[in-house]
Amino acid sequence: MNAIRDLQAVPRAIPPACFDALRERFGERFSQSAAVREHHGRDESAYPTMPPDAVVFAESTDDVAAAAAICHAHGTPLIAYGAGSSVEGNFLAIEGGVVIDLSRMNAVVAVHPEDLTVTVQAGVTRKQLNDHLRDTGLFFPIDPGADASLGGMCATRASGTNAVRYGTMRENVVNLTVVTASGQVLRTARRARKSSAGYDLTRLFVGSEGTLGIITEVTVKLYPLPEAVSAAICHFPTVDDAVRAVIEIIQMGIPVARVELMDTTTVRAVNRYSKLTLRESPLLLFEFHGSEAGVQEQAQVVRDITDSHQGEDFEWATQPEDRTRLWSARHNVYFAGINLRPGCRANTTDVCVPISRLAECIAQTNLDLAKAGFPALVVGHVGDGNFHVQMLLDPDDPAEYDEAEAINHRLVERALAMDGTCTGEHGVGLHKMPFLALEHGDVGVEIMRSLKHALDPRNILNPGKVVSAPIPAAMRQAPRGGQGNLGRPGVSL
Amino acid sequence: MNAIRDLQAVPRAIPPACFDALRERFGERFSQSAAVREHHGRDESAYPTMPPDAVVFAESTDDVAAAAAICHAHGTPLIAYGAGSSVEGNFLAIEGGVVIDLSRMNAVVAVHPEDLTVTVQAGVTRKQLNDHLRDTGLFFPIDPGADASLGGMCATRASGTNAVRYGTMRENVVNLTVVTASGQVLRTARRARKSSAGYDLTRLFVGSEGTLGIITEVTVKLYPLPEAVSAAICHFPTVDDAVRAVIEIIQMGIPVARVELMDTTTVRAVNRYSKLTLRESPLLLFEFHGSEAGVQEQAQVVRDITDSHQGEDFEWATQPEDRTRLWSARHNVYFAGINLRPGCRANTTDVCVPISRLAECIAQTNLDLAKAGFPALVVGHVGDGNFHVQMLLDPDDPAEYDEAEAINHRLVERALAMDGTCTGEHGVGLHKMPFLALEHGDVGVEIMRSLKHALDPRNILNPGKVVSAPIPAAMRQAPRGGQGNLGRPGVSL
Repeated sequence: MNAIRDLQAVPRAIPPACFDALRERFGERFSQSAAVREHHGRDESAYPTMPPDAVVFAESTDDVAAAAAICHAHGTPLIAYGAGSSVEGNFLAIEGGVVIDLSRMNAVVAVHPEDLTVTVQAGVTRKQLNDHLRDTGLFFPIDPGADASLGGMCATRASGTNAVRYGTMRENVVNLTVVTASGQVLRTARRARKSSAGYDLTRLFVGSEGTLGIITEVTVKLYPLPEAVSAAICHFPTVDDAVRAVIEIIQMGIPVARVELMDTTTVRAVNRYSKLTLRESPLLLFEFHGSEAGVQEQAQVVRDITDSHQGEDFEWATQPEDRTRLWSARHNVYFAGINLRPGCRANTTDVCVPISRLAECIAQTNLDLAKAGFPALVVGHVGDGNFHVQMLLDPDDPAEYDEAEAINHRLVERALAMDGTCTGEHGVGLHKMPFLALEHGDVGVEIMRSLKHALDPRNILNPGKVVSAPIPAAMRQAPRGGQGNLGRPGVSL
Repeated sequence: MNAIRDLQAVPRAIPPACFDALRERFGERFSQSAAVREHHGRDESAYPTMPPDAVVFAESTDDVAAAAAICHAHGTPLIAYGAGSSVEGNFLAIEGGVVIDLSRMNAVVAVHPEDLTVTVQAGVTRKQLNDHLRDTGLFFPIDPGADASLGGMCATRASGTNAVRYGTMRENVVNLTVVTASGQVLRTARRARKSSAGYDLTRLFVGSEGTLGIITEVTVKLYPLPEAVSAAICHFPTVDDAVRAVIEIIQMGIPVARVELMDTTTVRAVNRYSKLTLRESPLLLFEFHGSEAGVQEQAQVVRDITDSHQGEDFEWATQPEDRTRLWSARHNVYFAGINLRPGCRANTTDVCVPISRLAECIAQTNLDLAKAGFPALVVGHVGDGNFHVQMLLDPDDPAEYDEAEAINHRLVERALAMDGTCTGEHGVGLHKMPFLALEHGDVGVEIMRSLKHALDPRNILNPGKVVSAPIPAAMRQAPRGGQGNLGRPGVSL
């Protein structure tokens, strides 16, 4: 049995009174239709569909609090859903229960340009936010590729291409409004840029994947739009050359905004999917932010470093439309990959290592991939030491699933041996749970479990994920399952 | 009765077997001498001395784990002590017990220049660390003024003058080694720059002031020494003009490394204490880091902005010795203040507000201070919206203590009404406990209490601080107390 392909949901028994109460409170915003449940039980991982028993569409923090209070009273799982773009099975209803869809909570609550902050409801997506900010001269830099919701980005501690310069969600969330397991409403912090007033509740919920509370509002930092932006592409004979150039750039402290790696297969996929004519060799895609003079200064130093690592065809994209074309091609890598093998499902890795070990980690992984019986892409936010392998699997071939999981396991073990992490930005979900004890030790996992128990003693919040204990046998129903990838607006890769 | 001046310790009854076990394990590194206990029961706050019953000198994580296991078994308070520079009563033994002094844990464990990280034992101070790094071309920027220990800086979520550009301890800690209440050893994270692998244990302990665990090792980010550094002073007719200039600089996104405010009284104190001849008017002290061209570019923009806010006598300090003289004068502000009124004790405030409210917050506070019967200094890390009032009190005049606390209360309420925090960087300790519920609400404080209970069910770790519940009457002994400021190597202000 393969841990991904054959995993089946084991739903809890839910008393009908719970659904009655939700129906009464939410009316037409409560649904048990098969189509709605299917839609909310499938992400971009290779897991089979695990639909919840019901879906509630929330429009306010009060709605979420009411749903939590009802589910808490009945011991019913409650799972937050944003844009549906996660890739590790993060919101699949493995114990059944209720999915609460926050996509209608899409109001921008308050822009404070003078303080460089904005407060939004959790369902606002990053593209919507930046569209809203267009006339302010400010922007929100965190960009996981997918048009994810801000709530979801908080929940998985997302990052993406701009993290080299601007940090991840960990560094950029100012405060959160969170609904607790029992339906209380918490604001985690004030709007000051720093504080030493007690435990860091904000960071406790950032990355907790809906297992400690449900994020309903988010205040994040904004940045002035840089005076100048320019992008550049540089080709390399090997992935190793490209990665060594990046290591030197980071060690020099050059404040590049983004530096992304694509291997040859990725470039080929991108050319085909996005109708580009990039030379099909490993490449780095750079973006520089700053003053006119500052951007030129950074670019010159980077050019010198890439030259010394066999970089070739260093090419500028200073026009906004050229930059947009390149970066949207980068953002579509996930679908470009899927498109290389029609009908496939993707198994995606997400390790992150200290940058000094990155070249070695990718090189050893490529030896594994060279022997694999399926195509695979290597792309990476290499400035952070983070890269992804997207393995394209035949859903009807169990052997490919087994091989992919074996490669993933070896890759995680390799990253941990290098003092790295099993997941840089996609979260634990279902897929990385087996690695948590390897990464954090038994003491770390036990402490995480004690935090989970303290905040969610009935284990109703996204149960069966991250560090949740297995549900008691008495609460189990019969297994159920499903499968097939959805066409979502984007996926983080 | 004044909440500070008259607060007395109410020690727990501790079984002699606990001291026997500690004496047996630690030999001469266990002390119950009056002098050692006094030294470890006094910080730079205005609280009376609250000596512990015993002091243990730790030399390793194993030592700390052994002490925790013994104290845990006996329900004995265990309080971590670094450099002793805290200002909110953070480590005073209000319930008696054992102080564990980590200052001998002062080894630099591993420098990874290629990854821009360093791992140190908790007792390493920031000056010692930067001395150690001198030949690497790297530095650790967080600078709270005092020569605090890295463990203590983590525990209070410290920041200081460089936080505008480099962030606080929250953003700069990569991982921690922590001893739990029962004596288990936890490593909170790997050495990768980012991770989404479960709950953020690192940030849970950063800012927990020794109440959730004892930090014994710290890995922090390092930065390449900037190619160019320059400092500048600019005088203003009023504090308000100076603050408005800072607000505009921050809103423009100029990456100044530091920008510090001193009011006229502070400049007078600094001139006297550090033998300088600064013009006695409100001033801003800037530092710029970057390339030669970048520093010049930043400085020119800042110059233009200060000019438009009545800035005068903009003056460069490009020579390292001039810069050092200015910044060490800034770092000595606490003692310069104390020196203005010999024999006084200081009551220090630490609010932080959204920067758009900073000028208003300082102006209203100055109206309060103008009516006060004692001298007071206003200094601030104004780029973060954080400022301190140092009120110089006659220890024999209870009325001054009452007036200072009344001013402090009004200031905190003012900051909270502006969506700010009661403490930007000094921590909660004893002094800010009454404000936590105002700042975080009852739900927030209850969640903090549940975290405390989950990690320290016997309430032995620095009890009576942050959110600790009061100790049961059955465990109380008779009150005891003491007073007088110590001459420590420095204090965060």
